[in-house]
Amino acid sequence: MSSKPLILPDPTDPKLTRRLTGLDQNGNSQNLFVVEERPLTIFLNQQEIITAMTIGDHPDYLAIGFLLNQKMLLESDEIKRIDYDEELETIVVRTNRKTSYEEKLQKKIRTSGCAIGTVFGDMFEGLDSVKLSKVNVKTSWLYSLSKQINTIPSLYLTAGAIHGTVICRESKPLVYMEDVGRHNAVDKISGWMFVHKIDPSDKILYTTGRLTSEMVIKTALMGISTLVSRSGFTAWGVEIANQIGMTLIGRLRGKRFICLSGENRLVRDVDPQKISDERKENQRKASND
Amino acid sequence: MSSKPLILPDPTDPKLTRRLTGLDQNGNSQNLFVVEERPLTIFLNQQEIITAMTIGDHPDYLAIGFLLNQKMLLESDEIKRIDYDEELETIVVRTNRKTSYEEKLQKKIRTSGCAIGTVFGDMFEGLDSVKLSKVNVKTSWLYSLSKQINTIPSLYLTAGAIHGTVICRESKPLVYMEDVGRHNAVDKISGWMFVHKIDPSDKILYTTGRLTSEMVIKTALMGISTLVSRSGFTAWGVEIANQIGMTLIGRLRGKRFICLSGENRLVRDVDPQKISDERKENQRKASND
Repeated sequence: MSSKPLILPDPTDPKLTRRLTGLDQNGNSQNLFVVEERPLTIFLNQQEIITAMTIGDHPDYLAIGFLLNQKMLLESDEIKRIDYDEELETIVVRTNRKTSYEEKLQKKIRTSGCAIGTVFGDMFEGLDSVKLSKVNVKTSWLYSLSKQINTIPSLYLTAGAIHGTVICRESKPLVYMEDVGRHNAVDKISGWMFVHKIDPSDKILYTTGRLTSEMVIKTALMGISTLVSRSGFTAWGVEIANQIGMTLIGRLRGKRFICLSGENRLVRDVDPQKISDERKENQRKASND
Repeated sequence: MSSKPLILPDPTDPKLTRRLTGLDQNGNSQNLFVVEERPLTIFLNQQEIITAMTIGDHPDYLAIGFLLNQKMLLESDEIKRIDYDEELETIVVRTNRKTSYEEKLQKKIRTSGCAIGTVFGDMFEGLDSVKLSKVNVKTSWLYSLSKQINTIPSLYLTAGAIHGTVICRESKPLVYMEDVGRHNAVDKISGWMFVHKIDPSDKILYTTGRLTSEMVIKTALMGISTLVSRSGFTAWGVEIANQIGMTLIGRLRGKRFICLSGENRLVRDVDPQKISDERKENQRKASND
């Protein structure tokens, strides 16, 4: 892998934001950059699966990652062709294997993760067989990642109201995806990993969203043993992380963080007092779900 | 209606939070209050509809509101009985009318709203016939509501990682619901309004979450003409609000806000310079989706 991040947000892409005006508290007109939100209907072979609301970049990674994370596409599947129709807002993923998911589509779980949160079938399916790697995680990497991610030009910094997910190796962000739905951002990472056959065992997943049960399970099923967030966490998310030996870090901001699970893999190689607090302009706005 | 809010969060309810310990950046053990997240499977008569992840309070309002907002339950429906089984984590809503939603369950939209965002059928269904009331909204009410909501004792202030939705009349919060999924919080409000036959035409809906297309549509279908958030917004959310004449206010914090739609109904009756900024301890934590 090269030393430059492979995919970064492109806040200059005119398709991803719209210029709007609003009136502020003083009645003054304000020019705003606002993120787009558009439908993308995902098909697997002949089957229509779901319509996702997305900013619209990387529809191929989003579709593949979504299908993978729903276990509709298997790691062993070969993708024959992908047809994206921008005008019709559809994407069709075609596999060599014949797929049929009528049954799976019957059971739906509405999860508490931000944006999306639909799981078809059993959310815990496959979790028992997950064996996460036991690689160490240095706190110096976490601090460095946090600082980089919060200063890399992004739709978040330009427009706000968007989530980010970054897959990293040691202190290096590799791919940084954003989306109006935070699960979309994770799914795009999944799709990218599948297409490029990326080994998950030494990776760290960073998300701006909360660490809910679904986020922990999804990360585990992706084979990633370290999950980091600048946001909070739910009791069940923490419980599952403990059961499967995931290193779970919440509320990582400036010098502060809290390790909720998998402390044994955490190498505290830097004195937190030497880490500066977040600069105000790099803090994510409050309650930006 | 009495002058006291009718339902407020109960951060002391031991069922809603769990005590956990984590290790902070200095390796010191920290006692944490963490919100619970548990499944609730919603049935409509004989039909299993969905499993929602929720904190678990007000399962009746959540189930009714969810079914209403999915148009599976009609305004004209009479509820015969509700059976909640805490142990089995199920709730069954029984109506006099015979319901059948096999067909509706076929089409799913994965929306970008935080947490949840599953819409069955056509998200826009019914929007054409919505006639929103043209009542005025005073900015003094908005400032007062924002201040009250941010200081009322809540699970958010105790534990974080949770969303809030409040239905208000003028400057008065009436019902304040919280949930790990922000759509759950809105659905609980919907269920409460249905059960108590609340007139939506003079109400204001406040949410901590982003103003996405789904949130705007849901509010419109509830018959509420003013939607306020401390968070940001998507381009499509703003576009729909403009089309239907909803007053849409984003990023309401301290003296600041931005009016994105329906300015004609906004009465600017207070000088923003006289409004104090949010106190730091009342600011929602960054990126708390």
